[in-house]
Amino acid sequence: MDQMEGACGLLLNQKDAIALDQELMTSPGFSVDQLMELAGLSVACAVATAFPREKYEARPSVLLVCGPGNNGGDGLVAARHLYHFGYEAHVIYPKPNVKEQLFANLRTQLEQLSVPVEAALPDSLDRYCAVVDAIFGFSFSGAVRAPFDDIIRRLSSSGSPPVLSVDIPSGWDVEKGPPTEGPALQPGLLISLTAPKMCAAHFKGRHFLGGRFVPPGILEKYRLKLPEYPGVSQVVELPS
Amino acid sequence: MDQMEGACGLLLNQKDAIALDQELMTSPGFSVDQLMELAGLSVACAVATAFPREKYEARPSVLLVCGPGNNGGDGLVAARHLYHFGYEAHVIYPKPNVKEQLFANLRTQLEQLSVPVEAALPDSLDRYCAVVDAIFGFSFSGAVRAPFDDIIRRLSSSGSPPVLSVDIPSGWDVEKGPPTEGPALQPGLLISLTAPKMCAAHFKGRHFLGGRFVPPGILEKYRLKLPEYPGVSQVVELPS
Repeated sequence: MDQMEGACGLLLNQKDAIALDQELMTSPGFSVDQLMELAGLSVACAVATAFPREKYEARPSVLLVCGPGNNGGDGLVAARHLYHFGYEAHVIYPKPNVKEQLFANLRTQLEQLSVPVEAALPDSLDRYCAVVDAIFGFSFSGAVRAPFDDIIRRLSSSGSPPVLSVDIPSGWDVEKGPPTEGPALQPGLLISLTAPKMCAAHFKGRHFLGGRFVPPGILEKYRLKLPEYPGVSQVVELPS
Repeated sequence: MDQMEGACGLLLNQKDAIALDQELMTSPGFSVDQLMELAGLSVACAVATAFPREKYEARPSVLLVCGPGNNGGDGLVAARHLYHFGYEAHVIYPKPNVKEQLFANLRTQLEQLSVPVEAALPDSLDRYCAVVDAIFGFSFSGAVRAPFDDIIRRLSSSGSPPVLSVDIPSGWDVEKGPPTEGPALQPGLLISLTAPKMCAAHFKGRHFLGGRFVPPGILEKYRLKLPEYPGVSQVVELPS
C-alpha cells in the first residue's frame, strides 16, 4: 500500500511501524521498560490535557481497557501515572500477559496504588469521564476476538464516554482504517506514539502525539517531520 | 543519627534511603530502567524550570557530570531528555559503568543524539548555563577520589556556572551534610529524588522534588508527606 503524507511527514505503514519500534530497541538500545514507561506517561498526559482534573468537582474516573500486548502495557503504565496525577484509574485487563515479568510488575505497581484491575467491563460506564482504548496496537491484524469484540461494541455505542485510543483505534486496520464489517470504534481522541500510522488519515477528532524520544537518525530514515513539543511536555496536539 | 522533620515529612537517613530504593524495586517491582527513566526525566524538568530555554537567545548548553553509579545514570537519562527539550547537553562521564547493559544503552542513546560524552571537564565552563552534579548519590560515603575531587573543586569555585545537584550534593555526607575538610560543593539548586535526605537540612537554595512514583504504602512506612505535584509535572518546587 502506498504511503501518505500527514502532519508529521510520512504516515507509517504497518511494516515500517514494526521496524521503527524494533530499531528503537536495537540501535539506541532502548529497553521495553523505558519505551513503555515514556509511552504510557504520554498517554496519561494526553488524558490530563483533554480532561483536565480541575474541571471536575470530584476526582475524575478514567477507565483503561488494556489488551494482551504492548499497547495494553502502555495502558497499564498510563493508569499508574493517572493515579499520581490525581485521577481515579480503573483497569480492565481481560487477557493478561503472564509470560513477561515486566507485565507482572506493571500489575503489581497498580495493586500498590489500589487501582483495580479487572477482567470484565462494568455494566455501566456512566461514572467515567473518559475511556482509554489500549487494546490493540500497530501489530494488530485480522479479526477481533472475544472478549474484545463485545468490549469494542460497547465502546462504539452512543452511550459510551469519550474514547481516547492509544496509537491505533482498536479493531482498525493499521493502514486502511476502520473495519468495513462489524462495529467500528470511532474514538473522539487519538494519541499516536512516536509517529502517526497510516490509519490516522481516517481519524477525525483531537489528535495527540506522544513518545518524545525518537532520535534524528530514525526521523530521517522514516521521513518523519515531527512537530515541536512545547516546553517539557511529553505530548503535543496535532492540527486537526 | 536522629531523623529530622523537613518540608516532606521525615528526612531520610542513609539506611532508609537505601532501603526505600530497594523496596521500590521489590514490592512494586519497579525495574531500574523504569525508575532511572522517571528520575532522569525529573532532573531534566528541574533544569528546564530553573533555566527556561526561552530565556536564552541561542540553544542553552547544560553540562552534566555523571558519576559511576545510579546517580550518574540519572544524569545520563537527564541529558537525553534535555536534548529533546531543546537544550545542548554535554556529558562528562569519567568512570563509566561497563558492567551493566543499561548503562551501555544509556550511552548509546546519547550517541544517537550526537550528545558528546567525554572523560574530562572542559577547560572553561563559561558556555554552560548550568551544571548538573550527578556524581554521587545516597549510597556515597567516605572520601572523594580522583578524578572527582578535582571536578568538585572546580564546581565549588566562584567561576562555576550554577550547579544543580541530583539527590545529594556530591561529596556531602548523606546525613551530616557538607564535608568539614576539603572543598565543599555548595550547589545553588538541589533536586531530591522520591524524598529529601537528611543532608538537605543543610542546603540553602532552590529545592525541587522529583520521582513522582512513590506508592502510599511506602510514604506511610517512611513517614513521608510529599507535597502535591502540579498538573502532570514530574517535578515540584519545595518551599525554601
